[in-house]
Amino acid sequence: MRARHKPWAEDYLKENDDVVKLGAAEYKGKWQEEITDEKPLHVEIGTGKGQFIRGMAAQYPEVHFVGIEVVKSIIVSAVEKVKEAGSPNVTLINENAEDLLDIFEENEVDQIYLNFSDPWPKNRHEKRRLTYEAFLARYKHILKPDGELVLKTDNRGLFEYSVVSFSQFGCTVEEINVDLHAAEDPTNVMTEYEEKFSAKGQPIYRCRVTFPQ
Amino acid sequence: MRARHKPWAEDYLKENDDVVKLGAAEYKGKWQEEITDEKPLHVEIGTGKGQFIRGMAAQYPEVHFVGIEVVKSIIVSAVEKVKEAGSPNVTLINENAEDLLDIFEENEVDQIYLNFSDPWPKNRHEKRRLTYEAFLARYKHILKPDGELVLKTDNRGLFEYSVVSFSQFGCTVEEINVDLHAAEDPTNVMTEYEEKFSAKGQPIYRCRVTFPQ
Repeated sequence: MRARHKPWAEDYLKENDDVVKLGAAEYKGKWQEEITDEKPLHVEIGTGKGQFIRGMAAQYPEVHFVGIEVVKSIIVSAVEKVKEAGSPNVTLINENAEDLLDIFEENEVDQIYLNFSDPWPKNRHEKRRLTYEAFLARYKHILKPDGELVLKTDNRGLFEYSVVSFSQFGCTVEEINVDLHAAEDPTNVMTEYEEKFSAKGQPIYRCRVTFPQ
Repeated sequence: MRARHKPWAEDYLKENDDVVKLGAAEYKGKWQEEITDEKPLHVEIGTGKGQFIRGMAAQYPEVHFVGIEVVKSIIVSAVEKVKEAGSPNVTLINENAEDLLDIFEENEVDQIYLNFSDPWPKNRHEKRRLTYEAFLARYKHILKPDGELVLKTDNRGLFEYSVVSFSQFGCTVEEINVDLHAAEDPTNVMTEYEEKFSAKGQPIYRCRVTFPQ
């Protein structure tokens, strides 16, 4: 996601440390205790401007959501949305998905969401895709044994790559939707991208997987 | 697939025993030797009117194709097509997919195709779907250890069910296409249904899986 550079972003994030935690690594192994109030911990990787996490937080008050977004000028929009909604069960962190193991302890996370991740369509960029095997190994490590990952995208290439990558890694596909909006799932919370693309009649793809033990 | 009743079908099949084998069980364990001329054996389950198998046979002369179709008044159309094309590497059999273990020996088959199978959309008919676990167990038994199954359908519900069923059974998804014609695979041979549905702009779904050992 591209966004105009916002030189004030850093200061804005520091001022809003109730919603956004800088230095998230200090909570490793202590999320339940210090942040989530013993609620299940769901992590969205690539939170973008925060529409999904805000919607999910409202729909599932019994869950605590942590949204990871690496781009400062984008995460500020998510902070604004979460503040506006006054969601008590959302924490945003300005981190890179590559550093997940520094942020979460083994078996600390209940669920992971990947929404409309960058498809990195070129073969030589395969390792950057968030469903490349090295990322799956990180997810498996931080997820509880019965933890799940839910992937949602409008990008056919990324979806097809991801299903194969999950399967080769030994994941089990628990559910798959190849035209999510045709399926009319009333619990589906849309992201900004999803609204835009599905309004154009483009199919949205989703799958839910568990990891090998 | 529905077709007008053809009272002459039985006699027609008997007359064309070079193309269609009645009593296919007698070849169990002997397909390589007696039928395929030592070529790899690919089996299409639910051959319908035979457009796919005729096209595949022309495209892959180094493979022998066996087409199974349970409905006599439909298989006659496939017999006509194969005779017309003079395909030496196709054998049709008028059998039920439930009886696969009576027809093929363990590890006798190299590849299985399921094309536009009946979706049986009602939950209470799940056991009739050709990707229900009891069928997968039969496929695993007759396939060689490195054997593959390729499923193709326009039916979203059947596709989603099948991917989950494969995964739960322990299959590995080697390839998946959620809009086959957008992918423009030049080796794809279309069935009658596929021509009809893709002409309407409907996506065609395909996946290729291997079985757990």
